Amino acid sequence: MHNKQTNEESKKVALIIGAGDATGGAIAKRFAKGGYITCVTRRNIEKLDALISEIKTSGGIAYAYGSDARREEQVVALIEEIEQNIGAIDVLVFNIGANVPCSILEETARKYFKIWEMACFSAFLVGREVARKMVKRQRGTIIFTGATAGLRGSAYFAAFAGAKHALRALAQSMARELGPQNIHVAHVVIDGAIDTDFIESTFPEIYARKAQDGILSPDHIAENYWHIAQQPRDAWTHELDLRPWIEKW
Amino acid sequence: MHNKQTNEESKKVALIIGAGDATGGAIAKRFAKGGYITCVTRRNIEKLDALISEIKTSGGIAYAYGSDARREEQVVALIEEIEQNIGAIDVLVFNIGANVPCSILEETARKYFKIWEMACFSAFLVGREVARKMVKRQRGTIIFTGATAGLRGSAYFAAFAGAKHALRALAQSMARELGPQNIHVAHVVIDGAIDTDFIESTFPEIYARKAQDGILSPDHIAENYWHIAQQPRDAWTHELDLRPWIEKW
Amino acid sequence: MHNKQTNEESKKVALIIGAGDATGGAIAKRFAKGGYITCVTRRNIEKLDALISEIKTSGGIAYAYGSDARREEQVVALIEEIEQNIGAIDVLVFNIGANVPCSILEETARKYFKIWEMACFSAFLVGREVARKMVKRQRGTIIFTGATAGLRGSAYFAAFAGAKHALRALAQSMARELGPQNIHVAHVVIDGAIDTDFIESTFPEIYARKAQDGILSPDHIAENYWHIAQQPRDAWTHELDLRPWIEKW
Amino acid sequence: MHNKQTNEESKKVALIIGAGDATGGAIAKRFAKGGYITCVTRRNIEKLDALISEIKTSGGIAYAYGSDARREEQVVALIEEIEQNIGAIDVLVFNIGANVPCSILEETARKYFKIWEMACFSAFLVGREVARKMVKRQRGTIIFTGATAGLRGSAYFAAFAGAKHALRALAQSMARELGPQNIHVAHVVIDGAIDTDFIESTFPEIYARKAQDGILSPDHIAENYWHIAQQPRDAWTHELDLRPWIEKW
Repeated sequence: MHNKQTNEESKKVALIIGAGDATGGAIAKRFAKGGYITCVTRRNIEKLDALISEIKTSGGIAYAYGSDARREEQVVALIEEIEQNIGAIDVLVFNIGANVPCSILEETARKYFKIWEMACFSAFLVGREVARKMVKRQRGTIIFTGATAGLRGSAYFAAFAGAKHALRALAQSMARELGPQNIHVAHVVIDGAIDTDFIESTFPEIYARKAQDGILSPDHIAENYWHIAQQPRDAWTHELDLRPWIEKW
Repeated sequence: MHNKQTNEESKKVALIIGAGDATGGAIAKRFAKGGYITCVTRRNIEKLDALISEIKTSGGIAYAYGSDARREEQVVALIEEIEQNIGAIDVLVFNIGANVPCSILEETARKYFKIWEMACFSAFLVGREVARKMVKRQRGTIIFTGATAGLRGSAYFAAFAGAKHALRALAQSMARELGPQNIHVAHVVIDGAIDTDFIESTFPEIYARKAQDGILSPDHIAENYWHIAQQPRDAWTHELDLRPWIEKW
Repeated sequence: MHNKQTNEESKKVALIIGAGDATGGAIAKRFAKGGYITCVTRRNIEKLDALISEIKTSGGIAYAYGSDARREEQVVALIEEIEQNIGAIDVLVFNIGANVPCSILEETARKYFKIWEMACFSAFLVGREVARKMVKRQRGTIIFTGATAGLRGSAYFAAFAGAKHALRALAQSMARELGPQNIHVAHVVIDGAIDTDFIESTFPEIYARKAQDGILSPDHIAENYWHIAQQPRDAWTHELDLRPWIEKW
Repeated sequence: MHNKQTNEESKKVALIIGAGDATGGAIAKRFAKGGYITCVTRRNIEKLDALISEIKTSGGIAYAYGSDARREEQVVALIEEIEQNIGAIDVLVFNIGANVPCSILEETARKYFKIWEMACFSAFLVGREVARKMVKRQRGTIIFTGATAGLRGSAYFAAFAGAKHALRALAQSMARELGPQNIHVAHVVIDGAIDTDFIESTFPEIYARKAQDGILSPDHIAENYWHIAQQPRDAWTHELDLRPWIEKW
């Protein structure tokens, strides 16, 4: 439980769901730097300590929440908690999703479901809950982190492509319904490997492209989320792609 | 439990999942007419009586199965049963899915899940199980019934568009993985109202378009599924749309 | 100048623009076999002799025209000639277009223009002229031969992709305007090498795939054009793709 | 003929082709404000006087050129002139194109050609010429102004949609070829009316939406071009859309 402090009263809140990876963290830092009170979540709250410290050290305001975005009651409680004790959520960034490529012949029902639950169902729950608050204020920005798999169903990507296609459909549908209520919903297609510990340890040959700017910098991704959130409403972007210069597409 | 009869031994099997509506029924009749042993499913097997009778009266061979395609164990058992007692499944048509438009603000987690489970998760379960059989024989055709919502996320369609986008991704991913194994996977985009009891009773003003061929005839839809299933493998269609001449798109 | 003969009076006319290659020829033969009077064009009329003979030998009716589809006056005269002396054009197939891959840095203005002129401007001229006749009768079918380049701008394909994208836009725009006038406009995406002399002599390593059905048979392509032209108007296809089972996409 | 002045030597050049309308003008001003020497073109150079004055008054550097982008020799000469006398072109913005809706039945060959020539062929000429310079330096940014018509062929838009589809194909093809040479090629989809004199005088009922931010501000469009041009190469955007919050899509 956080108590909203006096000096924060006029500040807007940015909520980043899935700040456990480098991308979510960079987005949080960017919005903190831009003056937002930043609320960040992941399942294990302790793993957010470093991020919170970093933001505070830089003069930002940040709060961490342990929350499983796949559980409706947790999502509802999280949004209530933030809205009541921190402030009105002005920006929501949904940044969860993981690919585990697999032949369709070997894919399990459990994994197929879990990949969808994480990348899409969670997005629905969080998006809906935050939208319910935003429509009352007739303002807000919601950004979903998508992937190339949202545009194309490649071999061995049935589960992830399904989840990301569904996420993109969610973003489009929400954008069309909520846009005229002054809520800006956007979908960012990340196409390429991101500079993360995971890529470094798991795909060293891909990580090696970093030397020539061949993998996406989380900070540079974050700059685009910031850009979208700052767009005046006469010129909103609903979808943009981000990919390294040497990426094949 | 059905026993494969001697005179059916050389016949190929077409399995239509979701033959409860006019479209599934028409597809079953078309494949029966074309010489396939036709296996049809829906949750309530009794409701398939009329279809089975109609096919048999026309000289076709048809078997009905009560089966819930959302339940993995039922799907696994169904495919085993057909393969062991009826014959090798040469054509699979997946034809389940229902739209219940809703504002994102009012959409429930339960309904969002159920729409996905029915239109997409079922398709994954059935598609995977049948593909596992087909790859052993290195032949087969799998056709998924899609919708315009698979291409575009309209306002109030977040759940259905999500499910249908994911279904399209499944079809694409399977087509790319299984095509080189001689399994033809196709996705049919139905764009428009179909001549069904549901449309007649629920949307009479749409049904009135029937007088000028403004709604899709199930038999004409079926003819296109038949066409796809007969394509030689040097010229396969992976996606086609079907819409009435007066439909706006 | 051909004179319409008495026994042809009730027959419908299919016009194939660009019957110089195997695909156009196969389409002509398919419509002739289906009972259409078939009119075929290419720039050099003499090169159509073999096709005309083949159709006539099979009992079909066919007329050849030397016509440059890029010249408005020739197109106007051609359509007038056919409509007045042969019969009402019920089916138009536009089948011209050639790719000459090139780096954007080396592409000449002349070639960029010519590729567009051939694959797109010609289509506009012929499509418009025939549509003008068809709208008076409130019936007809127009099919444009497209390519994967109509969906995706690959490196070194700037000219061809531009022309084919524009062709697809033409097909869509015409379909939306003319559909409600009972004119069925469709776009066929051919994705893969076709079994032609050109492929055999120029890309022998691709042609070798023929042994395993890895290149498109013109006859099988033609069967799909026939299928489209026969669709009842409550279930029209506006776009379908055709590709060999082993083609990567 | 302009002579490059000493104090401009280290400055980069932004070339805006088609600065005759409010959008091109705003883009020019944005790049001038950002420190670029701005070169602007339109067919009638005198009409650029006000823009040049405005930029200079604000402390920017700007040069006007009367140039017809549809004429290869003029384009070649323009690029040579700028590169030799002003500086290396680091950013190219192509901003020409005009829609004149028309039934396909009434469309003239001349107008169909001219719409393509203006919106697409010019883009090819300018894009190629500038790319030839940029590849030598292995750096640069090229941005094409697209439209919704580049994604969808609506009724009565055959000519414009064709041109804009072809333009998008050009952008994609160039992006794929030139990206790995450190040249960033992007396509911006403008979806909606822009705040211009033309809209004000011709479509007053659309212009009235300005009161509620319902038409695109040229300055806000320009800000997105600037954003794209500043993206580090590990996170390039190749396509983004811009539309007012109340626009239907």
